[in-house]
Amino acid sequence: MSGLTFDLIKSDGGARRGRLTTAHGVINTPAFMPVGTAATVKAMMPESVAATGAEIILGNTYHLMLRPGAERIERLGGLHQFMNWPGPILTDSGGFQVMSLTELRKLSEDGVTFRSHVDGSYHDLTPERSIDIQRMLDADITMAFDECTPYPVEEKDAAESMRLSMRWAGRSKEAFRERDGYGLFGINQGSTFEDLRAESAAALTAIGFDGYAIGGLAVGEGQGEMFRVLDFTTPLLPAKRPRYLMGVGKPEDLVGGVARGVDMFDCVLPTRSGRTSQAFTRRGTLNLRNARHTDDPRPLDEDCACPACRDYSRAYLSHLVRTDEILGLMLLTWHNLHYYQQLMATMRQAIEAGTFNDFSAAFAAEQAAGDIDPL
Amino acid sequence: MSGLTFDLIKSDGGARRGRLTTAHGVINTPAFMPVGTAATVKAMMPESVAATGAEIILGNTYHLMLRPGAERIERLGGLHQFMNWPGPILTDSGGFQVMSLTELRKLSEDGVTFRSHVDGSYHDLTPERSIDIQRMLDADITMAFDECTPYPVEEKDAAESMRLSMRWAGRSKEAFRERDGYGLFGINQGSTFEDLRAESAAALTAIGFDGYAIGGLAVGEGQGEMFRVLDFTTPLLPAKRPRYLMGVGKPEDLVGGVARGVDMFDCVLPTRSGRTSQAFTRRGTLNLRNARHTDDPRPLDEDCACPACRDYSRAYLSHLVRTDEILGLMLLTWHNLHYYQQLMATMRQAIEAGTFNDFSAAFAAEQAAGDIDPL
Repeated sequence: MSGLTFDLIKSDGGARRGRLTTAHGVINTPAFMPVGTAATVKAMMPESVAATGAEIILGNTYHLMLRPGAERIERLGGLHQFMNWPGPILTDSGGFQVMSLTELRKLSEDGVTFRSHVDGSYHDLTPERSIDIQRMLDADITMAFDECTPYPVEEKDAAESMRLSMRWAGRSKEAFRERDGYGLFGINQGSTFEDLRAESAAALTAIGFDGYAIGGLAVGEGQGEMFRVLDFTTPLLPAKRPRYLMGVGKPEDLVGGVARGVDMFDCVLPTRSGRTSQAFTRRGTLNLRNARHTDDPRPLDEDCACPACRDYSRAYLSHLVRTDEILGLMLLTWHNLHYYQQLMATMRQAIEAGTFNDFSAAFAAEQAAGDIDPL
Repeated sequence: MSGLTFDLIKSDGGARRGRLTTAHGVINTPAFMPVGTAATVKAMMPESVAATGAEIILGNTYHLMLRPGAERIERLGGLHQFMNWPGPILTDSGGFQVMSLTELRKLSEDGVTFRSHVDGSYHDLTPERSIDIQRMLDADITMAFDECTPYPVEEKDAAESMRLSMRWAGRSKEAFRERDGYGLFGINQGSTFEDLRAESAAALTAIGFDGYAIGGLAVGEGQGEMFRVLDFTTPLLPAKRPRYLMGVGKPEDLVGGVARGVDMFDCVLPTRSGRTSQAFTRRGTLNLRNARHTDDPRPLDEDCACPACRDYSRAYLSHLVRTDEILGLMLLTWHNLHYYQQLMATMRQAIEAGTFNDFSAAFAAEQAAGDIDPL
């Protein structure tokens, strides 16, 4: 089986440099995927998202099934055409959002019944329905439907949740229609328990997927615990397939994840932070609402080539966020996405050059010497 | 005197085709000026504003003096550098906003004292202070400080208000520093009274300005009354100087204004409408919240070359506005500004070709045959 081709080009310690080929294009890994929840990466034109260096974006099944509806997007030519993003798209399964955004949900062996956070209407989401929605959306990468295990959790409950997700992973595989350039990823669960992660990895590998995600992290366990889980989990996953750490993370999480063999990431942090006046830079995180920026003629980052840094002062960005101007969100989002993509590009180059450890040390030192605002 | 060069290239009936040269570039007239109230044309990158064809934008003295402050903008290199708009900028005098946005204002012969709508702080605005602020902003075109006459108004009160504005026009001229490429416009007042408009025109002409604005219209008098006032007012203004109809208007107002000899316009309508789900097209105004658009694969306007029409369906734009996505505001604002600039370009071509009457008739017919949503 495989609808997706993954070429592993180079390894450097645990870090991997790869190339994932999909129906809508190639993704150089390690890769960061901007989140386009409701068929838009918020406050960005899609050509601007591409200009930051992003090669793949993520869409949210839960949001799209409610508005504008998967059937409607299919009628309108699929998500690529609908939102004018010709490149690869990964969609999540909806499982995480159902658990985090809805009330009155009911979980059974079959799936989840829930009420929409938009209009209170009732919906069912099962492995079969989730996979079908993702097909209608025309996702290059479809995610298996899983239950998001809460955190913290007793091992017994984590085991039960993981085993349900593994049964759903099997049903997701059954429901998925194989096509060239399209693939299905399974999701490893088991919370912070090594034996459960191992059991989950074995179950997924037995089913066979185009890629393997690590779910249930970045849910409050902290970076140290997340890295500890990654340390024993990534080696459990098939080396020849891409590994995707879901919902992660801060810049330092990405560096630590790559060091531990992760190939793909997604997170709302760069876009959401852009809408809350925060800018990520090589020297730490700036809060543009801080009074010290109001007269500062310098750019956010002198070495950054994004439009926000190329054309504007911190004083101007400070003015925009203080006056709640939309351009402030637009520029900070662009900068943050650019920063994230630059960070990934730098890591890819370091792996190719066999200097990932040096990069990682320099990154930590630069952040520590930083120009950081209290947030 | 003249810091600004205005070349009248062609006339066609009352319509005029001209070229206004400023320190920061040339403006082809008739021209529409997008409004960049707080040092940003809302929801637009400045290069996108330029891409629509805009050659000059407007900044608001009242907003900028409060946030971020004129002195701060001057320290940061002026408004062009601050907001990354290298082209010409016209600033208003602040008079209109003081009357429309503030409470507890006190009017005297000297000027206006008012409380900021932002933080309640007290400020003075006089002709001298307004002109000095506009100099600090580095406006290519400075507007004389005037009192905005309310509407409707008794002739006696309109006369008193107009005469105060004429005395302030003289003080504005005294306060203005002549520089090459920079100019000062006087503002004709007198409400809907022909004799007052004539008295005002004579007073302004005696002082001598680089251009002449028509103020106190588009304040509720209706299009018919506005056109009636224009019919007798524009002939009163010096033919060799540009004429600017302030705060106007809808597309049909622009066509009627150009027919009556107006060279410049500004209005928040295209940008504000873009933020309230409305799109101007050759065939009328669409409201993207209307249910009929949710499944419509067509663009807003098949013949429009803007990104919103080039890359997206009405269904997608409908989805964006229904989910309150920022990209919806961005795309509709872009489309509306593009439409306005295309309309101006078409009028300039028609005047050059001597076919303005034909254009005007065709425009009215196309709008009347329109695809219009109840708003």
